[in-house]
Amino acid sequence: MKNSINSQLGIIKRGCTELLLESELEIKLAKDRPLRIKAGFDPTAPDLHLGHTVLINKLKQLQDLGHHILFLIGDFTGMIGDPTGKNATRPPLTREQVSQNAQSYTTQVFKILDPNKTEVVFNSSWMDSLNAADMIKLAATHTVARMLERDDFDKRYRNNQPIAIHEFLYPLVQGYDSVALKADLELGGTDQKFNLLMGRELQKHYGQSPQCILTMPLLEGLDGVNKMSKSLNNYIGITDSPKEIFGKIMSVSDQLMWRYLELLSFESMENINQWRLEVEQGRNPRDIKVQFAQEIVTRFYSPKDADEALSDFETRFKHGVLPEDIAEITIAIHEKDILLVQLLKLANLTASTSESMRMINQGGVKLNEQKVTDKNIKLSQGETVVLQVGKRKFARILIQ
Amino acid sequence: MKNSINSQLGIIKRGCTELLLESELEIKLAKDRPLRIKAGFDPTAPDLHLGHTVLINKLKQLQDLGHHILFLIGDFTGMIGDPTGKNATRPPLTREQVSQNAQSYTTQVFKILDPNKTEVVFNSSWMDSLNAADMIKLAATHTVARMLERDDFDKRYRNNQPIAIHEFLYPLVQGYDSVALKADLELGGTDQKFNLLMGRELQKHYGQSPQCILTMPLLEGLDGVNKMSKSLNNYIGITDSPKEIFGKIMSVSDQLMWRYLELLSFESMENINQWRLEVEQGRNPRDIKVQFAQEIVTRFYSPKDADEALSDFETRFKHGVLPEDIAEITIAIHEKDILLVQLLKLANLTASTSESMRMINQGGVKLNEQKVTDKNIKLSQGETVVLQVGKRKFARILIQ
Repeated sequence: MKNSINSQLGIIKRGCTELLLESELEIKLAKDRPLRIKAGFDPTAPDLHLGHTVLINKLKQLQDLGHHILFLIGDFTGMIGDPTGKNATRPPLTREQVSQNAQSYTTQVFKILDPNKTEVVFNSSWMDSLNAADMIKLAATHTVARMLERDDFDKRYRNNQPIAIHEFLYPLVQGYDSVALKADLELGGTDQKFNLLMGRELQKHYGQSPQCILTMPLLEGLDGVNKMSKSLNNYIGITDSPKEIFGKIMSVSDQLMWRYLELLSFESMENINQWRLEVEQGRNPRDIKVQFAQEIVTRFYSPKDADEALSDFETRFKHGVLPEDIAEITIAIHEKDILLVQLLKLANLTASTSESMRMINQGGVKLNEQKVTDKNIKLSQGETVVLQVGKRKFARILIQ
Repeated sequence: MKNSINSQLGIIKRGCTELLLESELEIKLAKDRPLRIKAGFDPTAPDLHLGHTVLINKLKQLQDLGHHILFLIGDFTGMIGDPTGKNATRPPLTREQVSQNAQSYTTQVFKILDPNKTEVVFNSSWMDSLNAADMIKLAATHTVARMLERDDFDKRYRNNQPIAIHEFLYPLVQGYDSVALKADLELGGTDQKFNLLMGRELQKHYGQSPQCILTMPLLEGLDGVNKMSKSLNNYIGITDSPKEIFGKIMSVSDQLMWRYLELLSFESMENINQWRLEVEQGRNPRDIKVQFAQEIVTRFYSPKDADEALSDFETRFKHGVLPEDIAEITIAIHEKDILLVQLLKLANLTASTSESMRMINQGGVKLNEQKVTDKNIKLSQGETVVLQVGKRKFARILIQ
């Protein structure tokens, strides 16, 4: 290992919620051998957004430190689906589907991780050989009371919401994966802490040295409030176009930008802290945002795409007469597109759609600095536009 | 079937605690085919006493009605043992041990059941082919809350006593046995009701017509109070000697005798009720007891053994000057034997062991109607003796 234990710990802990136990991890690091790093992923719906990459970035950092990444696809339970049959959105996957999903997963993930240094493993390869008796023995390692300590189980039990018994087995399966992989460290979201601890406990039970656990926060979405998710439409997909990614990153608040930098950028914390100082001393945060947006577009596309996205953005927003402090608004729509006259009203640039029409008739509305003549113009989800009404009302609008 | 549905129901319900659902059983019986009757037994420690035979007698009655008996040995869980490793008395059994125990079981059970009409089945034969995923699907059929309804689970959970998660799987395995066997009716002790109901529920889940369940009471021991058990030493073992069985049955109270007749005798309830009437009208209950004791000894040995046990008993108690209303006392001892002088005191025939010695010296003590001259005589556990002190104090004592 080229990095000192302290420097490694600094990189490992960057942005994390919790590292348990740091003292144990120090001992493991001191052994000067690549650690076996486990991270588990669902084999369904592999359509990643930047929120998912928080964890993958951490894997990348660990990989760059020389550790061995075990990218675990939980296909065993995926192939069971929802055994109660109540959840139609979780049909049992075939082995072929698992394989296709895994392919799609790695295609996305290998934009960050080095494929040559990443071991992709499927837990079916050991779970399929467990029989009913093995499962019973695994279940015997923990008590009902211990399982009901998990937040969501506790809440559901108290509220008389049903918990099917197999749900108690899944954390054990996940924990057993750590045994099968002889993991030194497991990564997961903060909501996974209980399950990660299962791995520790089961490893002790099976006579192994227990894994450390590292939990990462759930990334806030573009709104800066809710967790990034597709259903809330506050996400940046890693398959979004370069221009979309660039535009969405430019739309985040100056505050949220620092959070994104810590969790999503591969710039060192030293650099980031330096920039923060500079911004406090008057530097325009937009410069940092541009640089960050370029880093992300480069990661998922190329430097060329990043440059193009930048020039496009600059063409649209930097040139012309737009004021520097133009309002940035995100407007969520329910359809795929929206009439400009409605959007003007939603953005409070006009008081009503009829006022919008009147203003257009009078030649007082500009869309991306072009005078609007067509009252039936529609704008689409995902577009970022600058609207101007009269001389003084401006807004930059992200349509979601 | 030669018996009418009503007459069959009468025989089936004799002595039972609960039959669920009688209306369903009527429909099953009306189909006029042999019902598949399931009863499960632990593959460990097959050393049966009359308490165990209550259930086996019921199987015998069903067998005599023409139904198909499935004598299920739960070897699958037996071979797992206590997976927590905490219970040293439940080591995992090998397949050989299971087979030996089963042999010993059937040797005993076939003193009651007809071996040619009894199908002995081992649940390992279907459970061994279930894998971990099957076990998860089985676990998904029930909720944690449903399982915590079981009396003992509920009590332990409330008292913060640990319940290992695999304990939730065992009732499901037992229930799945009913699915595998396509059982029409399952028999069990009253303490098994919850598990028998699992069978019903799982059969419904797997699209089968649900089994009826028949629970039998736990037989009281010789003390007439506690459940018959080896550890309480209030039992009649089916491998006890003919004389022991005979003597122990003769020692039961006149009240308990009727209970034993209902649950242990194969005499019809018509006859038993007739005898009860006769006893109420003055017939000596001892006659009934003698006849019952002979029935039981004949069942486990032979009519000749029964006759010999009777003559032995009569030689010892009927002849001579003993009064008819002699007290019957059961005395539990902690050693294998006891000094006569101590026994006299424990039976309140003397006030102290020194009085016992004085009475023996004076020639005032008789043991089984023979004057005692040796103060060091010891009597053994399992013996039934008649003691006399002076002219008027008598007791028949069962030493346990």
